[in-house]
Amino acid sequence: MATPTASTPSPATGKQTPDATVKWQHRHVIDSSKLSYTDVQEILNTAKTFADILSRPVKKVPTLRGKVIVNMFYENSTRTRTSFELAGRYLSADISNFSIATSSVKKGESIIDTAETLAAMGVDAVVIRHSSSGICQQLANHFGNRLGIINAGDGWHDHPTQGLLDLYSILEKRSCIKGKKIVIVGDITHSRVARSNIAILNLFGADVHVAAPSTLLPVDIEQLGCKAHTQIEPALEGADIVMCLRLQLERQKAGLIPSLSEYNKFYTINKERLQRHCKPDTIIMHPGPMNRGVEIASDVADDKSTSLITNQVTSGVAIRMALLYLVLSTPVERGQ
Amino acid sequence: MATPTASTPSPATGKQTPDATVKWQHRHVIDSSKLSYTDVQEILNTAKTFADILSRPVKKVPTLRGKVIVNMFYENSTRTRTSFELAGRYLSADISNFSIATSSVKKGESIIDTAETLAAMGVDAVVIRHSSSGICQQLANHFGNRLGIINAGDGWHDHPTQGLLDLYSILEKRSCIKGKKIVIVGDITHSRVARSNIAILNLFGADVHVAAPSTLLPVDIEQLGCKAHTQIEPALEGADIVMCLRLQLERQKAGLIPSLSEYNKFYTINKERLQRHCKPDTIIMHPGPMNRGVEIASDVADDKSTSLITNQVTSGVAIRMALLYLVLSTPVERGQ
Amino acid sequence: MATPTASTPSPATGKQTPDATVKWQHRHVIDSSKLSYTDVQEILNTAKTFADILSRPVKKVPTLRGKVIVNMFYENSTRTRTSFELAGRYLSADISNFSIATSSVKKGESIIDTAETLAAMGVDAVVIRHSSSGICQQLANHFGNRLGIINAGDGWHDHPTQGLLDLYSILEKRSCIKGKKIVIVGDITHSRVARSNIAILNLFGADVHVAAPSTLLPVDIEQLGCKAHTQIEPALEGADIVMCLRLQLERQKAGLIPSLSEYNKFYTINKERLQRHCKPDTIIMHPGPMNRGVEIASDVADDKSTSLITNQVTSGVAIRMALLYLVLSTPVERGQ
Repeated sequence: MATPTASTPSPATGKQTPDATVKWQHRHVIDSSKLSYTDVQEILNTAKTFADILSRPVKKVPTLRGKVIVNMFYENSTRTRTSFELAGRYLSADISNFSIATSSVKKGESIIDTAETLAAMGVDAVVIRHSSSGICQQLANHFGNRLGIINAGDGWHDHPTQGLLDLYSILEKRSCIKGKKIVIVGDITHSRVARSNIAILNLFGADVHVAAPSTLLPVDIEQLGCKAHTQIEPALEGADIVMCLRLQLERQKAGLIPSLSEYNKFYTINKERLQRHCKPDTIIMHPGPMNRGVEIASDVADDKSTSLITNQVTSGVAIRMALLYLVLSTPVERGQ
Repeated sequence: MATPTASTPSPATGKQTPDATVKWQHRHVIDSSKLSYTDVQEILNTAKTFADILSRPVKKVPTLRGKVIVNMFYENSTRTRTSFELAGRYLSADISNFSIATSSVKKGESIIDTAETLAAMGVDAVVIRHSSSGICQQLANHFGNRLGIINAGDGWHDHPTQGLLDLYSILEKRSCIKGKKIVIVGDITHSRVARSNIAILNLFGADVHVAAPSTLLPVDIEQLGCKAHTQIEPALEGADIVMCLRLQLERQKAGLIPSLSEYNKFYTINKERLQRHCKPDTIIMHPGPMNRGVEIASDVADDKSTSLITNQVTSGVAIRMALLYLVLSTPVERGQ
Repeated sequence: MATPTASTPSPATGKQTPDATVKWQHRHVIDSSKLSYTDVQEILNTAKTFADILSRPVKKVPTLRGKVIVNMFYENSTRTRTSFELAGRYLSADISNFSIATSSVKKGESIIDTAETLAAMGVDAVVIRHSSSGICQQLANHFGNRLGIINAGDGWHDHPTQGLLDLYSILEKRSCIKGKKIVIVGDITHSRVARSNIAILNLFGADVHVAAPSTLLPVDIEQLGCKAHTQIEPALEGADIVMCLRLQLERQKAGLIPSLSEYNKFYTINKERLQRHCKPDTIIMHPGPMNRGVEIASDVADDKSTSLITNQVTSGVAIRMALLYLVLSTPVERGQ
């Protein structure tokens, strides 16, 4: 299990209130495993205050007026990009999109030079999605606290806002997740979503399991703080929460799964599997976009009594509002 | 001729004022033929009040502040997308663009799942352009009044904001269009613009004609409420208004027209044809973008005394402001 | 040397204050060589007042609220597009992006028809980048003062905001540039940046030199007001300022340079060359994006004591704020 940093209260104490004397002072959110228990509590509390804005007739507060954020998306993602974009707009920030297709990246400029250019234009924070694991940390090392940096998914490494929004969504339904059995099912190897969730759920004392065909399960995954299964039945047994992962369909071409129908036969989360193995009120989650009939059956996805999939999307906006607020409110003078 | 719904005053009565007791209560604008006479009058009146904003030094009113609209454009269209975008901005809405190139659509997500995601992010209305006829109605059936939906062109089916802006443009020049001969010339088969105009012009009692080579004229087009011609001369004879349609140049490759020069010879709207057949003050319209020298001669397009082409663009913004306002002001509790 | 227009004070007089009786009255900024000394002084002074906004916690003033600008970018450029976009946003303008990929251009519409459409939608000014030299002037001839037009780079012709931001950046470090030796190094033939700088630096009495391999040096370049060199050493000798140009790597494929390593050997601006030939406190500039190790060595680019590269980016936003303000504040009634 991942160890929270020494300065934060251990989830083992069950203490769920943040230490009021330790305050957020990060300009970067890059690595789920480096977030302390206190950090996460502060993010959750901030998100809670912002979530209300989403259901108002006028979805706009002036909190970040005159702050400038750029979405640097080197991989396509309407969902995450739009989530950050709307999060910024609800807080009255100026948020600009920067996509591969029209970028100087094509001209061979390094991402550090590109980000330096944005910083010199007055940009306060960048939100980065990139196919290279570790690129956000590399930028953070270069910039120190001169530029806010939020990781919106870097390679297979991490996707901290996903882990945070998943935690937030669960805590809206369950008062405590300590000891709860949470099973992540699907392509664990290539999943930054899985890595982010393992780190953050462990911080809150969950009993995290992962299940995947052996070709999609890294050998040393248990070192991250989870129990690994190559068969789905023991993984689902007594589960409180099931998280499906999106199966990148190109994995089949790479020979990592024999066929979609075989995957469907052994791993798809459907009503029958849930009823046979999980707790009666098991929560179902999916980071989206879904391949219906591949990793999740449609009736499971659409059952509002157990599926949190829509809630996850809404939580995502609230969490991103919280992070933009916290990162942009951290004084630049202090270190990360 | 299309029949207005029973509850609305018939154009045959010539009554041009809306029934004050019937108020707009739609969350969707999808089908021109389902708009009642009262609906259209309310749209026109609302557009009129908004049109003034466009000529002010400060083109901004706070009407839709804190409302969120997403342009879901699955087909390229700078013109219509920008028109909706500016319409939203003039009303202070937050309007975000979503284009094919960067969308999850590429990842195989259904448009319903994509729209559900947007709704869960707090989006109040979507503006949709898509190549599939009927996709907006499909979304409306799914969402009911949970999400505002405006059709910005779906396949060959409909493009209601085009029919509305054309009507608005005409009514700025002519006090009444009852009985006026209006000729739509060009590729009728593939034209959602033609279908929208036939429906809306009929509602106001116009005498609608269409003219096209037989390969570009659907067999049953007269059932929509118009007279069909395969030769342009009788169609233009005594016309009050001539609407040119854009000729998709790829139709020639498909063998539907023998050659552009033959099309030009028989169907291009030029000065000579207009002077020989139409009324002296005939109005010329085109939805844009134009193929100059193909469906319309340049001197006709640029003659400010008769061409409404630029006015149509301006009217389009006013009509879209009106629709965004009406759709977003309709309480979500009421049915569509 | 380019001659300033008769009505403006000559740089030869050393008079650096603008003539208060002559005020900005342009709706277009297209050609660096047509800007008068007074024009440039007014731009610099305006930029100075706006530059402060960039370092404020709230980077937003209401100056251009309700004004609408469209970035018409027919060539990819994140850097310049984002610079204009942020400049507009800091002044509270509505600024919309229009890119090739989603434009009606693909449908064969002329740029004049596209711009007419935007004007009819209420757009106050367009910022244009296009591969055709002279296209901005063509638009200006068509529109007169009906539409604000700012050239953001047209073919090899001009890029006036670059020349202006370079001048602004230099004047932040040097009180006067009259008589200063400024060397522009690189692909002069294909460089609108070089042409813009030659015109504007001459207006302020600089001693402008250019250096390039003969294949990248136009025969008649000296007529623009500079001394040409095919060897870098005499060009750098005693230089106060060195401007590197970006080398489009595709020039090598076209056979204009033998190889990148040969270019590097003879033309790259590195520490050794600077120390051997230039003044001790020589300023180094680059319009970005850089090819590190090709036209400029990394240690030169990153030496904050002499490199103005980051300052140029910041100055670019201030200059563009100034131009948007000046162009949009010019009454439409007056001629260009």
